[in-house]
Amino acid sequence: MNSNNNQITVDIEPISRRLFYTEDETFYELLINSGIRVRSLCGGKGTCGKCKILVQEGMNFLNPPTKSEMQYLTQSEIRENWRLACQSRVKKTKIQSAKTHQPPQLRIFLPKDILGEDFKILTSGKSKKINLNPNVKKIFVEINKPTLESPVPDIERIFSSLSSTRDNTGISRDVSFEIDTIRKIPLVLREDQHRISLTVYNNKKLIDCEAGNKTEDCFGIAFDIGTTTLVGYLINLHNGKIYSIASALNPQTAYGEDVISRITYAKDNPAGLEKLNSILIESLNSIIKETCTSANVSVNQIYEAVIVGNSVMHHLFLKINPTYIGLSPYVPALKSDLNLKAKDVNLEISRSGYVYVLPLIAGFVGADTMGVVISSEIDKELELTLAIDVGTNGELIIGNKDVLFTGSCAAGSALEGAHIQHGMRAAAGAIDTLKINPSDFGVEYTTINSKKPIGICGSGIIDTVAEMLKAKLLTRSGNFNKEFIGNARIVKEEKDIKFILVNKDDTPIKRHITISQSDVRELQMAKGAFFSGTRLILNHLNRLNNSDLEIKQILLAGAFGNYINKKNAKFIGMIPDIPDEKLFQIGNAAGIGAQNCLLNVDLRKKARKLQEKIQYVEIAVEKDFQKEFASAMYFPHLNLNLFPSLKEYAHIPKR
Amino acid sequence: MNSNNNQITVDIEPISRRLFYTEDETFYELLINSGIRVRSLCGGKGTCGKCKILVQEGMNFLNPPTKSEMQYLTQSEIRENWRLACQSRVKKTKIQSAKTHQPPQLRIFLPKDILGEDFKILTSGKSKKINLNPNVKKIFVEINKPTLESPVPDIERIFSSLSSTRDNTGISRDVSFEIDTIRKIPLVLREDQHRISLTVYNNKKLIDCEAGNKTEDCFGIAFDIGTTTLVGYLINLHNGKIYSIASALNPQTAYGEDVISRITYAKDNPAGLEKLNSILIESLNSIIKETCTSANVSVNQIYEAVIVGNSVMHHLFLKINPTYIGLSPYVPALKSDLNLKAKDVNLEISRSGYVYVLPLIAGFVGADTMGVVISSEIDKELELTLAIDVGTNGELIIGNKDVLFTGSCAAGSALEGAHIQHGMRAAAGAIDTLKINPSDFGVEYTTINSKKPIGICGSGIIDTVAEMLKAKLLTRSGNFNKEFIGNARIVKEEKDIKFILVNKDDTPIKRHITISQSDVRELQMAKGAFFSGTRLILNHLNRLNNSDLEIKQILLAGAFGNYINKKNAKFIGMIPDIPDEKLFQIGNAAGIGAQNCLLNVDLRKKARKLQEKIQYVEIAVEKDFQKEFASAMYFPHLNLNLFPSLKEYAHIPKR
Repeated sequence: MNSNNNQITVDIEPISRRLFYTEDETFYELLINSGIRVRSLCGGKGTCGKCKILVQEGMNFLNPPTKSEMQYLTQSEIRENWRLACQSRVKKTKIQSAKTHQPPQLRIFLPKDILGEDFKILTSGKSKKINLNPNVKKIFVEINKPTLESPVPDIERIFSSLSSTRDNTGISRDVSFEIDTIRKIPLVLREDQHRISLTVYNNKKLIDCEAGNKTEDCFGIAFDIGTTTLVGYLINLHNGKIYSIASALNPQTAYGEDVISRITYAKDNPAGLEKLNSILIESLNSIIKETCTSANVSVNQIYEAVIVGNSVMHHLFLKINPTYIGLSPYVPALKSDLNLKAKDVNLEISRSGYVYVLPLIAGFVGADTMGVVISSEIDKELELTLAIDVGTNGELIIGNKDVLFTGSCAAGSALEGAHIQHGMRAAAGAIDTLKINPSDFGVEYTTINSKKPIGICGSGIIDTVAEMLKAKLLTRSGNFNKEFIGNARIVKEEKDIKFILVNKDDTPIKRHITISQSDVRELQMAKGAFFSGTRLILNHLNRLNNSDLEIKQILLAGAFGNYINKKNAKFIGMIPDIPDEKLFQIGNAAGIGAQNCLLNVDLRKKARKLQEKIQYVEIAVEKDFQKEFASAMYFPHLNLNLFPSLKEYAHIPKR
Repeated sequence: MNSNNNQITVDIEPISRRLFYTEDETFYELLINSGIRVRSLCGGKGTCGKCKILVQEGMNFLNPPTKSEMQYLTQSEIRENWRLACQSRVKKTKIQSAKTHQPPQLRIFLPKDILGEDFKILTSGKSKKINLNPNVKKIFVEINKPTLESPVPDIERIFSSLSSTRDNTGISRDVSFEIDTIRKIPLVLREDQHRISLTVYNNKKLIDCEAGNKTEDCFGIAFDIGTTTLVGYLINLHNGKIYSIASALNPQTAYGEDVISRITYAKDNPAGLEKLNSILIESLNSIIKETCTSANVSVNQIYEAVIVGNSVMHHLFLKINPTYIGLSPYVPALKSDLNLKAKDVNLEISRSGYVYVLPLIAGFVGADTMGVVISSEIDKELELTLAIDVGTNGELIIGNKDVLFTGSCAAGSALEGAHIQHGMRAAAGAIDTLKINPSDFGVEYTTINSKKPIGICGSGIIDTVAEMLKAKLLTRSGNFNKEFIGNARIVKEEKDIKFILVNKDDTPIKRHITISQSDVRELQMAKGAFFSGTRLILNHLNRLNNSDLEIKQILLAGAFGNYINKKNAKFIGMIPDIPDEKLFQIGNAAGIGAQNCLLNVDLRKKARKLQEKIQYVEIAVEKDFQKEFASAMYFPHLNLNLFPSLKEYAHIPKR
């Protein structure tokens, strides 16, 4: 992102929106004036201390902390560059001196408490019906009382009661007790006449006991830990129903936008790993509490958590140093699945609860992708199917009942608004769909939460580029069509050309919202990475299998995959040219994979088998990588024969 | 214990010594004047705050806390009745008013810090040679490095290296990693060129990893948790050698002398269990540090602790409510052995270390007795053998290669000095051996640490009674022989007769040290319980097996068993009449059992098998219990035919 017009820019995280700073305004004013709702009780007077922001870049351009900040911020917050938005501004002298040099570029992070409107986080998805066979069950038993003639210890009497019910419950012969359970037994047993409910983990461990019949109070939580967003699903393991869902932004975003910057943070800061881990766990614990509160369930009734996440999130969740995932030859510490005690990872469910972490597939293809495979059941498809999970990273899976190949392309960030001048994440005020009238280039759009537009998110960017192509505003090579330069909506600047989507009078940010030539290039790179990645994996697959398979069906997973106009995604050549009815949006498939593994323990065995079956393709070292990538940069592709259904391209100039 | 001469008595714990209070003296003066060394820096001026004592009974007779105490004691210490010995005394007015009523009886507890001289705690014993096969091993492996062609995760490369060495090490195919180990792997692996030492638990879990070859730094600790004393043995698991031993008084003594009063404390106080557990664990952690310091070993190199203790100590160690061991039908929460994570019981060894707790045998026959069985190998004896473990409780085991029976008698406390007027525990100044010249009743004795005598401990009491019998000062029914009443060493009081062992001029306590008629009765009850218990178990055994076996050999275990004069124990009829060469003192056999289980994991399987084999006899409900007990109260027994070797009894009057 280059700065514009020699002005001071302020990147607002975690919504990834770049704003332009006007002399003398506070950051609070900057945000409010740009239409970004910020929570504050005093309305920016410095008397409530609520508008805390973290200055991630450019601290040296700011005024020193004011009296009000000294009062509301702790010493350590001040050391870590926290400020109050209403008290901080860029120093005039700094602006003066900067004008002759490089203009200041700042970056500030708005924590969850201050950001007035929540993100649009995808929590739902298409779930196939699965059988209920959870790893945790509660069984109700009545225990014999001891006598002087037969003074059998508590635990042994419980064992013999279990023996008689064992055949029905599937409980193992060598079931063992957790120490916390043993500690409870003497009193619980005598609380309700030796009638107790036992919580059984993996048919092998008794992890809890309660007086009376509590078999229905048995819960689990499935977590999808994304680089940007966290989602938790509270599920009753007795009936398989989702009781509540809660989501949050990944608070690690404050320490780096993408996985590479998080690895760097963990590597370069002595307590970096500890920090990234603890804020993540804290946030997951808040989600646990939130789901429990809204479903009126006690956290002590949650006995298992199931986790999916990409490899770096996986390591950070487990507090494992991710350094070597980021360095060649890119190895994770482990990729097998894990069963852990919740307290060993500080997850605040039942004290004797467990955590199941899905296996990774490879260094950059994580447990989230395994979740997609599990929930999409791509391994059962008869036709060759492509599944794309577009998050902050993009993962590709190509397979059917016979073969399964996967690869990763770092292409998602443009689609989340990064590197696009007016791009932003899918938050309130983002343009999410857009249409261009080919006759007058008039623009119609919708925004998230129907707020005045302040930027454009991934699905809006794809729509814009597709519509610009259809209106012949762009050529197939991604250049602005010279024919229309001079049109009122096209602005030519020193180094760039821009198409105006929203006039400055129609947006609170008070400058045009545009798509520039460089923005189009960013999208070309992203969609080119997806398409060439798909082609390279397919070639690899066909070469290895000595086959000539083609993709017959596409599953679009993830938040982005869910919100985009799938026809437009095909139109720009991001995905192969297959009939629209063979294009499916499957929602948060990774999260559903976690839910499914929570509900049915057999799927965990399946995940282990899949892990051995799935073949990882390192796309960047494939033969023809450069050539494939360059050809896929064209709209829809250098080779139009690959997109026979897109008749419109006959009329769109190539260069 | 009744008070004497209408005087104020002060029982000093944990040495179980009764002192008589002189008007106006501080407790510091009382202790020092009685020859009990107390640590103090200021010599009793109230300016060092070191002489903290806990007032367990009679707080209301004391002066209110002084300024000095307000300074040196915390609010909560004052609430819990802690005082400074040099600042506290009995209030004069209280003495006045008390004189007309019952004289005050006080009890104060001296914590480890203040008691100047340590207890005599038995730490050694006779150990049979055992094979080295510990549950924790360290193995050194060199791991292949990853390449771009084969980017295998760290853990998987470690697994394949293990595969090649597995046959030699016995490591299981499905070995798993603890999360703490996984967290260490990425950095440790790269610290010394992929050369690492792995700590393997039970051939199944990798619980630690270190860079380089550390195979010799592998330790375990065996604990004997007694009601009164704690002993820890630090053992190198690579070579099987004991590196250091440390012991301490069980700090729970402050909350009750015996197991029943501890159960009551845990039951009646809301945080009682928590308290008894936490002070015990704290003390064990001090022992761990002490053994490590003296052997120059890091606590992180201790990977396993093995625990023996009686059933109540077992429950309190595990923080399990012991209430129901103390109530009919006397059932423990469990009796099977346990493998736990050290951190789940707050034991401060390696963060990923484990604890093994030996199994119990029955409600009042604990893991300590199992330790005795394991170390004595009574189950391999050809001849029928009696093993007696005399601690604060007494446990009896009778068995050989074919049969194993056990029972418990609450008879030990008299032998630890309780209920004996001048009795005390085996601490400095206690008379431990004694001889009486039959011609002039002159007394020769030795004391622990050769200090001036201040009381008499168990072995001294047995010697005294045996010698009094030999001198015909006592009759076989335990009465003082009327013939000698009037002798200068025999004092007749209103309700009691006493034999003077030490003249008041020869002891710092400034009154005669005596053995009274009631003291002899206490000993008769104790020895009668042991002997009748032995007989009843033997009868039970013979009845069940339809046999006519007799005891051919005796093993005396425990501190007391080790220090007593075994001939005198036989002479008073505490143990059956078998030849002296068949009487063995085997020392701290329970502690050695723990050591053996630490060194050889096969012995744990054996303990589980023994648990099923050993038959528990509830002595008090046996037929003829009353009759057997009454007959065994005689010296050596009502039926002299049971003690044919004791020719002296021909000359000792019966009544």
